[in-house]
Amino acid sequence: MKVVVIGAGMVGSAVVGELLAHGGISEIYLLDLDRDKAEGEILDYSHTTSYNYNPSANLKIGDYHHCKDADLIIMTAGPSIKKGETRIDLAGKNAKVMREIMENITKYTKDAIIIPVTNPVDIVTYVAAAEFDYPRNKIIGTGTIVDSARLMRIIGNKYNLDPKNIFAYMLGEHGRTSFAAWSISNICGYTLEEFIKVRGFNIKLDKDAIEEDTKKIGMEVWRKKGYTNHGIAAGVGRIVKAISLDEKSILPVSVLLKGEYGIEDVALSVPCIVSENGVEKLLEFPLPKEEIEKLRFSAKSLKDVIEQI
Amino acid sequence: MKVVVIGAGMVGSAVVGELLAHGGISEIYLLDLDRDKAEGEILDYSHTTSYNYNPSANLKIGDYHHCKDADLIIMTAGPSIKKGETRIDLAGKNAKVMREIMENITKYTKDAIIIPVTNPVDIVTYVAAAEFDYPRNKIIGTGTIVDSARLMRIIGNKYNLDPKNIFAYMLGEHGRTSFAAWSISNICGYTLEEFIKVRGFNIKLDKDAIEEDTKKIGMEVWRKKGYTNHGIAAGVGRIVKAISLDEKSILPVSVLLKGEYGIEDVALSVPCIVSENGVEKLLEFPLPKEEIEKLRFSAKSLKDVIEQI
Amino acid sequence: MKVVVIGAGMVGSAVVGELLAHGGISEIYLLDLDRDKAEGEILDYSHTTSYNYNPSANLKIGDYHHCKDADLIIMTAGPSIKKGETRIDLAGKNAKVMREIMENITKYTKDAIIIPVTNPVDIVTYVAAAEFDYPRNKIIGTGTIVDSARLMRIIGNKYNLDPKNIFAYMLGEHGRTSFAAWSISNICGYTLEEFIKVRGFNIKLDKDAIEEDTKKIGMEVWRKKGYTNHGIAAGVGRIVKAISLDEKSILPVSVLLKGEYGIEDVALSVPCIVSENGVEKLLEFPLPKEEIEKLRFSAKSLKDVIEQI
Amino acid sequence: MKVVVIGAGMVGSAVVGELLAHGGISEIYLLDLDRDKAEGEILDYSHTTSYNYNPSANLKIGDYHHCKDADLIIMTAGPSIKKGETRIDLAGKNAKVMREIMENITKYTKDAIIIPVTNPVDIVTYVAAAEFDYPRNKIIGTGTIVDSARLMRIIGNKYNLDPKNIFAYMLGEHGRTSFAAWSISNICGYTLEEFIKVRGFNIKLDKDAIEEDTKKIGMEVWRKKGYTNHGIAAGVGRIVKAISLDEKSILPVSVLLKGEYGIEDVALSVPCIVSENGVEKLLEFPLPKEEIEKLRFSAKSLKDVIEQI
Repeated sequence: MKVVVIGAGMVGSAVVGELLAHGGISEIYLLDLDRDKAEGEILDYSHTTSYNYNPSANLKIGDYHHCKDADLIIMTAGPSIKKGETRIDLAGKNAKVMREIMENITKYTKDAIIIPVTNPVDIVTYVAAAEFDYPRNKIIGTGTIVDSARLMRIIGNKYNLDPKNIFAYMLGEHGRTSFAAWSISNICGYTLEEFIKVRGFNIKLDKDAIEEDTKKIGMEVWRKKGYTNHGIAAGVGRIVKAISLDEKSILPVSVLLKGEYGIEDVALSVPCIVSENGVEKLLEFPLPKEEIEKLRFSAKSLKDVIEQI
Repeated sequence: MKVVVIGAGMVGSAVVGELLAHGGISEIYLLDLDRDKAEGEILDYSHTTSYNYNPSANLKIGDYHHCKDADLIIMTAGPSIKKGETRIDLAGKNAKVMREIMENITKYTKDAIIIPVTNPVDIVTYVAAAEFDYPRNKIIGTGTIVDSARLMRIIGNKYNLDPKNIFAYMLGEHGRTSFAAWSISNICGYTLEEFIKVRGFNIKLDKDAIEEDTKKIGMEVWRKKGYTNHGIAAGVGRIVKAISLDEKSILPVSVLLKGEYGIEDVALSVPCIVSENGVEKLLEFPLPKEEIEKLRFSAKSLKDVIEQI
Repeated sequence: MKVVVIGAGMVGSAVVGELLAHGGISEIYLLDLDRDKAEGEILDYSHTTSYNYNPSANLKIGDYHHCKDADLIIMTAGPSIKKGETRIDLAGKNAKVMREIMENITKYTKDAIIIPVTNPVDIVTYVAAAEFDYPRNKIIGTGTIVDSARLMRIIGNKYNLDPKNIFAYMLGEHGRTSFAAWSISNICGYTLEEFIKVRGFNIKLDKDAIEEDTKKIGMEVWRKKGYTNHGIAAGVGRIVKAISLDEKSILPVSVLLKGEYGIEDVALSVPCIVSENGVEKLLEFPLPKEEIEKLRFSAKSLKDVIEQI
Repeated sequence: MKVVVIGAGMVGSAVVGELLAHGGISEIYLLDLDRDKAEGEILDYSHTTSYNYNPSANLKIGDYHHCKDADLIIMTAGPSIKKGETRIDLAGKNAKVMREIMENITKYTKDAIIIPVTNPVDIVTYVAAAEFDYPRNKIIGTGTIVDSARLMRIIGNKYNLDPKNIFAYMLGEHGRTSFAAWSISNICGYTLEEFIKVRGFNIKLDKDAIEEDTKKIGMEVWRKKGYTNHGIAAGVGRIVKAISLDEKSILPVSVLLKGEYGIEDVALSVPCIVSENGVEKLLEFPLPKEEIEKLRFSAKSLKDVIEQI
């Protein structure tokens, strides 16, 4: 399996680590405008391959022509948000970055599955999926996969439980209009409210606060350490596992909608079956009216951004 | 972490493989009346430790005195069922085996967590938990963890989905009176019936048939290959992971009930939080009346066996 | 990555376990004349995929037509040695088995890398490599990879060291004429004799006894547990890792010689660089005269067998 | 297993990633003067625990009192080198940092194994081992473990081989006076010179250039990406594996010498057997005179630093 990672920043670097840990990726190409940065990461990671237990995958500096036979292209390039900058500013910049990158990629392939990670990921995914004649099922933005992981972790903390026992999704925009799909969230088939009693905890559940915490925690990590990378890189790792093993896993990821949920021509996160084909199927969950509305509000908010850039 | 595996048969051997793959178990002792068999397995596994990616854990022939500082004791010893034998016959034999083993173990420790795997696992777990003054939270029978895994796999096949996306438990006896707790089973928060439409499949769901298949598939594996070991060993591996990482995972395992669900003095599988303390908490799910009744029927059936042996 | 495993016996089953643990194999086909046995193993392993941490690879019953797009074919089929049987008897039987299997494989592919494991592995490898017009670099018998692992483990035991710190190879036939290539064996660059002092042990080193133990220990495992599987399956796992990650690892494996070491038209184990191309390069080590002679003696012994069958 | 990581910078953060990937570490405490930084990393990593293949280890902000029952303490705190700063400047600063940290640690434990990683690691290791009455075997500086990994990678690149097939150590100071112990370096028992022919490459081997590249490549990574972390973190991971599995692996690590190699009262890297006891045994290799002299030169150079600070 051959993977091209575009962008050697904190996220791109952590993604390379995930790919090495995966155990089945034989070639990893890291590509960055700042070639030195990419070389530094590749050299540094290559020094891990001498130790027993660490796989000797082939790590190389990438160029766009390496996309030719790539199975996967993971897009992490582009500037992060800066203080004082609006999301529209960032969206404009990174839409442009994605456009240029897609122009380069499509010179070499329309077969690789592309995973946009760069923020605002829904805009970047939209650009890739809507502006280029690329197979729609092969563009999977990380979207709210990390928000969902955060939501489950936060609930897990509250219940003092393994987060893998909790099922909960954040859907919509990876950003301020995302929302917890409470109608489907559950712990072993019980609503969060019911499960507090099962757990034997005498606490009052404030789901609004949990949702709010989930939406803010990325920003909190960003404020505390200057960026976020491990959570999102592990999300990429989860998607890569589903693709490489053809697992047919349901994951909340950002995809271009064409009428599903009454939403058109915008990319945002809904549950999708991910397989070796990329998005095997976009699932239309029969969400309650208020959640559909939140999803549409997210869509509208993203469309506004698209129009402004 | 130090683990004693009792029984070097097909299950015990596969459990050693799981412990090696775990990555954090430094000492594994394998103990069997047939010392040759144990030595053969230990030697064979020890030859894996020379390869670059295989951990050099310490593999040794065990004696009961190794239980002294053990963190975990995994009990797989005792005969399997033979043609023409009734379950009462087997229960009688393996209750006796467990009794002798517990007498040996308790000479050295009451600190180790004991995981009975030998069938009938609920009877064997009962003997260990009820007849010896051993901390109740430290005896965790594998129970229906493997039945639950089978149920999720069978549903996963039907829906062409990663079984990790499916939540479903078999509860009660690991055996003929086990039952699917349909009230809590779900795929992403939807009942199985609802999810068929979400998946876009036009198939008729027959939950009774799925439950029946689940109950029979262990026997089918047994008939086809003469025993079952990989599925159950992976179940042990899951429990060991939860204990060793103190994960606080909810798993369906066999524990001695003392009034929970209105059931007393019998061991069977109910959802438990598993942590470094063993059973951190036995959870009382507010199951519907018919499932409670099935659980009690399972309890009664097991009590009958206990009385007869 | 797609792998076909032929033979669902103890070795084939353990190989499937290795492939699942690998983490990057998406499709595993298990093929056996005894279809029930293959189905039993596949079902049993499939039940592991529901647990967190266990990959949901696709496990299926195989037919020869699955070889068509396979990346790897691992051959473990054929009877084991029986009491009273000579090696010539077994060689005759399994040469025939391999021949039939190769006829079936070559109907569908000459692209897959084939790993013969069935014993006598050098004869079986010879049949595959010499009698069919299959690319020579794509046939890699496991040969003495497991004997080498055993040698390193036995030395590791003597020195109370991680066997991964020991470099030692058994070469030649996987069988009675194999030999320890002492001229190249070393611990951190020192001969075994020198290293005893470094280690601070006051023991007399008997290399002949170590070599003899190594040659006998497979038989000892066989006598004690009735077969050997974990050590050899991990050896297959090591080869698969080298191929799948294109590691270019030097491993002692059985390959058809065409004049190297002055040996022609026989398959036996010499050091080879293993990569995504299979045998990237057969290395001719400048072994001392007495080791070359042992290698040639091994070759002669194998040729005798080939002539008799 | 409980681990305290001191320092939440790039290295400390990467070390937490290694500990999570290890699979057997249940509690990880991250401690930093900049509590926000530690919290950011802990939060970020905690979001990985919701995904199916990522272990739910317990990640927490640490305080020194958590050292009380810790099995391991990994020290990565302290400033990195700045432009214009001499190594003496840095040594002075970080010796002071280590001293304060050891004062804090020793209030709570003398049982944990301490792994200093902070640079200059030999000075920092010396401070911990010589100035406090801490068991000498329980202080293991990472030393030249990463330099050795780099050397093997560089040789592997030249020979187009898996670096795990290459045995080569850098010894002495982790820094400018380190040296390649060519007398023991080998590929499958052959000197590097001999192996070029075996490999079939017609290149001239320049060992001085390889040694020089190895010494400079850390600085090159530092110049290209601003720091080094993945290679060194994997080195920590290798040491942790050896300790946690009691592997008795020979690794080049920094330890306090007391007369070995004719060197006293300085810490630098020599080959040591690493086990659950920490340094199980410091090995005195019978190195040739010129390498002993290089080792002593390294020792002298480090002593000069110690005297100046």
